[in-house]
Amino acid sequence: MKEDTRKIGEDYNDAGPEVSDLDHPKIHKGLVGLYVDESLITYIDGINGKLYYRGYPVKELCENSTFEEVAYLLIYGKLPSNSEFNAFKDLLIKERNIPDNIISILKSFPRNTTRIELLRTAISALSLYDPDDYDYTEPANIRKGLRIVAKMPTLLAFAHRIQTNLPLVEPSEDLSHSANYYYMMTGNKPSKDFEEAYDDVLICHADHSINSSTFSCRVTVSTLSDIYSGITSAIGTLRGPLHGGANEAVMKYMVNEIKRKERVIPWAEKKLARKEKIMGFGHRVYKTWDPRAVILRDIAMNFFKKAQNGELIDKIPNNGHNIHDEVDYIVEMTEILNDYMIKTKQIYPNVDLFSAGLLHTLGIPTASFTPLFAASRSAGWVAHAIEQLKDNKLIRPRLRYIGKLDKKYAKIEER
Amino acid sequence: MKEDTRKIGEDYNDAGPEVSDLDHPKIHKGLVGLYVDESLITYIDGINGKLYYRGYPVKELCENSTFEEVAYLLIYGKLPSNSEFNAFKDLLIKERNIPDNIISILKSFPRNTTRIELLRTAISALSLYDPDDYDYTEPANIRKGLRIVAKMPTLLAFAHRIQTNLPLVEPSEDLSHSANYYYMMTGNKPSKDFEEAYDDVLICHADHSINSSTFSCRVTVSTLSDIYSGITSAIGTLRGPLHGGANEAVMKYMVNEIKRKERVIPWAEKKLARKEKIMGFGHRVYKTWDPRAVILRDIAMNFFKKAQNGELIDKIPNNGHNIHDEVDYIVEMTEILNDYMIKTKQIYPNVDLFSAGLLHTLGIPTASFTPLFAASRSAGWVAHAIEQLKDNKLIRPRLRYIGKLDKKYAKIEER
Repeated sequence: MKEDTRKIGEDYNDAGPEVSDLDHPKIHKGLVGLYVDESLITYIDGINGKLYYRGYPVKELCENSTFEEVAYLLIYGKLPSNSEFNAFKDLLIKERNIPDNIISILKSFPRNTTRIELLRTAISALSLYDPDDYDYTEPANIRKGLRIVAKMPTLLAFAHRIQTNLPLVEPSEDLSHSANYYYMMTGNKPSKDFEEAYDDVLICHADHSINSSTFSCRVTVSTLSDIYSGITSAIGTLRGPLHGGANEAVMKYMVNEIKRKERVIPWAEKKLARKEKIMGFGHRVYKTWDPRAVILRDIAMNFFKKAQNGELIDKIPNNGHNIHDEVDYIVEMTEILNDYMIKTKQIYPNVDLFSAGLLHTLGIPTASFTPLFAASRSAGWVAHAIEQLKDNKLIRPRLRYIGKLDKKYAKIEER
Repeated sequence: MKEDTRKIGEDYNDAGPEVSDLDHPKIHKGLVGLYVDESLITYIDGINGKLYYRGYPVKELCENSTFEEVAYLLIYGKLPSNSEFNAFKDLLIKERNIPDNIISILKSFPRNTTRIELLRTAISALSLYDPDDYDYTEPANIRKGLRIVAKMPTLLAFAHRIQTNLPLVEPSEDLSHSANYYYMMTGNKPSKDFEEAYDDVLICHADHSINSSTFSCRVTVSTLSDIYSGITSAIGTLRGPLHGGANEAVMKYMVNEIKRKERVIPWAEKKLARKEKIMGFGHRVYKTWDPRAVILRDIAMNFFKKAQNGELIDKIPNNGHNIHDEVDYIVEMTEILNDYMIKTKQIYPNVDLFSAGLLHTLGIPTASFTPLFAASRSAGWVAHAIEQLKDNKLIRPRLRYIGKLDKKYAKIEER
């Protein structure tokens, strides 16, 4: 067993003020509005509905950049030079493959499971094969992180194809990160239109400051645990319907519950009357439009228009549905629901409302929406893990105990 | 694919006061001294050095109870009646087995890895086999949690024996949780002395309020993700040397660095001069003696005395060491280091200082210390996941952005 090289500084008495858990301190349930650290990664302007990665507006990045470059930007903190970027892209391509045993393991699992469970398990298992597993320096952490970013699409495409009994599509060295991901999922190499729309979805999901999954990643690495543990925590956290599960939920109500545009408003009225959350709307940080929703709405509407006009050259893998009808329905139902929610409840759409319809039209199965979110967010998770470790402090809060004390233990026959 | 039964309430606008991430809010780095919720589980009295589970002093539980009963207490919030306890023990016994495919997977992995990585991966994989995987109600969550508590010793003992090329020891239905765990690890059924000492170590580690691993578990399930995701996060978080890795670190310096009692003080002086943390001392919450350290010190010293007097009937699996010499050394070096740290630095020992020596003397390999901590803490993790979900609020803090904004994207050739 290799030795642990982590340097552990002196940090004994950092409990803060001497206070009893029985006192009546302020409780910050959900940590709402509470700042846990400073960061140089992402700025969410919730008031003006703007989002920046490393100071660059995400809208500009969608227009000008690629997922690979955004991943570089998030992780290294700056845009790459030409030679840096070529080396980076080569590395990501080289790292797309996954160990044979991981593929065998994916094949050995029951088929009727979520892909996020497979991803969580496979990422956890990948640490066992990482050549830097016992190196905890920053360069090694970055190498590990990039391997995770590179391998996630392969794992997810393989998981999808194994679960649906399709032959695996090996990664192609000639395609970009997004195009290759799409190709491994669907078996089709995408046109420029498809590649760009898919790439924009990935860019829009690449980071979002300290959302719950990113926070769990930072909590995990704050014990000086490893990057794989951090990303595994993040994947499990993303799984929940209050977080990454939301885009799948949007698609499900679109195709399984609402089905026809005439039913949008009655359906929404019923949900609201029952005080149930309508996924795809509202956000803890944004009070107005989610800027990612604005960006993806434009991209989606542009893409839908091309589909309606028959301008897309790709064959859309549509599982027997008539794609024309579907696009018409998605465009109309999205706009109706959007207008209704803003007008009656002053609740604005978030990124999930538009990413769901777009991914569906691109031929991505609903069960792969949350996994795709994870593959994209992996770049942000890695950036946050590295930032956490640069100036680490163990993340360890308190709970206020509100039960009784000094209960007497009675023997079992006397209870 | 089964349907998601989780009920999601209306919770759109919970961002707290309208504040920009560019303002200068107070930063709660590490969440030191900050209360994130109320709890009925564990009370740590850091001032008086006392610990309570569900209101019962842990010292009393060590003296009167068993790990199974403590797990029941933590998870259900009360001590069981006779019939409840019998049913509970039967359930834990029945759930000790793990699916054949998980055993095959453990065998398929590289040997030179930590057992925590194997455990993290195996627990993540186990969700794929759980009959309640898509049931998110509280009773289903408890069933899942109990399966995890029951299966962890089996997974860990198997992982240990696979890594050291020993034949697997199947769980015995005739032994208690602790005795069976010890038996599957070592191949020997323990005497009462061994069983009780081992059980006390498990009880002392079963919960500790919202330490980092428990917090990561609560963050994960706060998105309404599943219990397996929560426990997987917790295991990865526990792995870090600032948390669960500490007991292994104590053993390593005892046997690899200090080696002879004469070297204790020079070694400690050198560490302190370099401002390096000495594992086994200090705690964020305790300013005085860690109560678990007090309890385990008594248990360990009592056990060591019996070993020195030749009163233990078990054959200690000692890997070729002379157990008598080892016990003498551990007793002496622990006391010397303990006195030195309290006198010169006013830093008190924590649970890791005494659990390490005791587990070593019980014949547990150092590489299984952190895993054992996880197996024990699983009871607390499950209790906290259930408590979090009883009155859930998404845990999602903020980060204060301190970088530049509105940077201009330049084409790559112009950078």
